[in-house]
Amino acid sequence: MFQQLFSPSVQHTIDVIGIFVFAISGALLAVRKNFDIFGIAVLAEVTALGGGLFRDVVIGAVPPAAFTDLGYFITPLFAALLVFFLHPQVERIQVGVNIFDAAGLGLFCVAGTTKAYDYGLNLTASATLGLATAVGGGVLRDVLANEVPSLLRWDRDLYAVPAIVGATMVALCIHYDALNPFTSGLAVVTAFVLRLLAMRFHWRAPRAWNRRSTVTEE
Amino acid sequence: MFQQLFSPSVQHTIDVIGIFVFAISGALLAVRKNFDIFGIAVLAEVTALGGGLFRDVVIGAVPPAAFTDLGYFITPLFAALLVFFLHPQVERIQVGVNIFDAAGLGLFCVAGTTKAYDYGLNLTASATLGLATAVGGGVLRDVLANEVPSLLRWDRDLYAVPAIVGATMVALCIHYDALNPFTSGLAVVTAFVLRLLAMRFHWRAPRAWNRRSTVTEE
Amino acid sequence: MFQQLFSPSVQHTIDVIGIFVFAISGALLAVRKNFDIFGIAVLAEVTALGGGLFRDVVIGAVPPAAFTDLGYFITPLFAALLVFFLHPQVERIQVGVNIFDAAGLGLFCVAGTTKAYDYGLNLTASATLGLATAVGGGVLRDVLANEVPSLLRWDRDLYAVPAIVGATMVALCIHYDALNPFTSGLAVVTAFVLRLLAMRFHWRAPRAWNRRSTVTEE
Repeated sequence: MFQQLFSPSVQHTIDVIGIFVFAISGALLAVRKNFDIFGIAVLAEVTALGGGLFRDVVIGAVPPAAFTDLGYFITPLFAALLVFFLHPQVERIQVGVNIFDAAGLGLFCVAGTTKAYDYGLNLTASATLGLATAVGGGVLRDVLANEVPSLLRWDRDLYAVPAIVGATMVALCIHYDALNPFTSGLAVVTAFVLRLLAMRFHWRAPRAWNRRSTVTEE
Repeated sequence: MFQQLFSPSVQHTIDVIGIFVFAISGALLAVRKNFDIFGIAVLAEVTALGGGLFRDVVIGAVPPAAFTDLGYFITPLFAALLVFFLHPQVERIQVGVNIFDAAGLGLFCVAGTTKAYDYGLNLTASATLGLATAVGGGVLRDVLANEVPSLLRWDRDLYAVPAIVGATMVALCIHYDALNPFTSGLAVVTAFVLRLLAMRFHWRAPRAWNRRSTVTEE
Repeated sequence: MFQQLFSPSVQHTIDVIGIFVFAISGALLAVRKNFDIFGIAVLAEVTALGGGLFRDVVIGAVPPAAFTDLGYFITPLFAALLVFFLHPQVERIQVGVNIFDAAGLGLFCVAGTTKAYDYGLNLTASATLGLATAVGGGVLRDVLANEVPSLLRWDRDLYAVPAIVGATMVALCIHYDALNPFTSGLAVVTAFVLRLLAMRFHWRAPRAWNRRSTVTEE
């Protein structure tokens, strides 16, 4: 039982912060897409809870935490209200939002990997579900907004790779029986810092080799 | 065990009617998108059963009713056939279709809330899943058709709010131990009438405040 | 217990081949959409494993085979690497890829139907899930790439119908207690050959009658 690396109340506070910042990113996209207040709330919920919901359904942890924990459910609604009234101000502090989003990415990839392993999945599958927990909500957000998921686009700064590194570190720690609050926190910080560096220096992943050759853009 | 508010056969008939009208709306969109007969059938099935399928997977009621009840499964195929052959006529009675769709909305938000509560979810989660049961199929329909879900668009008449009201009424009735066929029916009718009024008077939800400010449309 | 129609190792080899060819089709679309290497890997995984993942979640077989079998998970990554480095060459042998894809379609509709029946679903539901296993990954691929699923478009050669025929044959064999490696293989081959014929002769499904009438294209 690795899941309680931190005391339950600390873990819960961390989760709620991660959920809040993810919800902000969903609500902001909804405003840009001209959705109404209800659409803003839906996109906030989906972005914040979608990744964890997917993980819980796949590992058989039903009903998912997103539906059993009232705090998890209500937090995105606050984010939606905040963006509804103050979106120009929130946009202006986009840099701050991005930093929190990077923190959420780090927290969720570690928490997701740990929870999946707790439910009996192997290490590769656990790390994959850790990644899915961290990035799944953003993919659902973009699909609902009818956009190509920014996760998959080559012209965006690295987002998945930091989460993959964090999830892999957790999996390795589990394998070598070295998972504890310290190594776990180290994985969070590594993913967080990698994402910050990727944003600062616009790190990007390569596209297919010889991209121009026979293939045309659609 | 609240689920059997009505006798099983009455409940089943109600469900099938709701499934049928939702399937009509999916099939009509498929015709507008120029899909073939198979695409029409898929969109009819997804629209009619998608919301309930999502709810059942989330609450752990697997295999979902959509796959265990032959009537649920076959009804959308009839709707697809009807639209395939008679879509100009069906389009012409769009008002009638909309009225039935409003009825389906009312029925499904109440049935979904009740079923989720039966599976042990708390009241907030139950009401949320009631909403998801009522509107989830339509969202999946629009995602598959590669359109922005009409549920989220500000330029459509209120659709989710009536379902939220209906689901909340059921949750309150459960809380005060007052759920019975009468109050349950009242919730259905309230959601139904609210949706009719929203269509009649083009009620819409507000978009974010100061929408013009710093944010540009994409 | 019909699932082990073939010896486990033979069945596993067949599955891995099917997964590989489906992954190739996902990776190729990712290259065409200009995704980066990570997007290529995601689309390969989703295309190859999405259909089976959906089936397993619906029938309650969690964690799904996609996450418990390391071979299933790693195969799409090889396909992604191959396409990343050699996509012009892979494009050039598109005909070969299509033939393997047709084989995957046949294999997956039969394996999906059999597995769903093993988990207690009725014959109609089993055949439907067999179809979903075969085509679900492709639909998810197109949704993530923000395209109308080619499955639903009238201007593509028949894809679902061969899978429906294969799945129905399996269901009928189960009904008449005649499912064995031979009849099962016959269903695979029938779906495979039907798909090849559909590609060769550009068989298409009809659109709605009187398509021009009152309905306009969007």
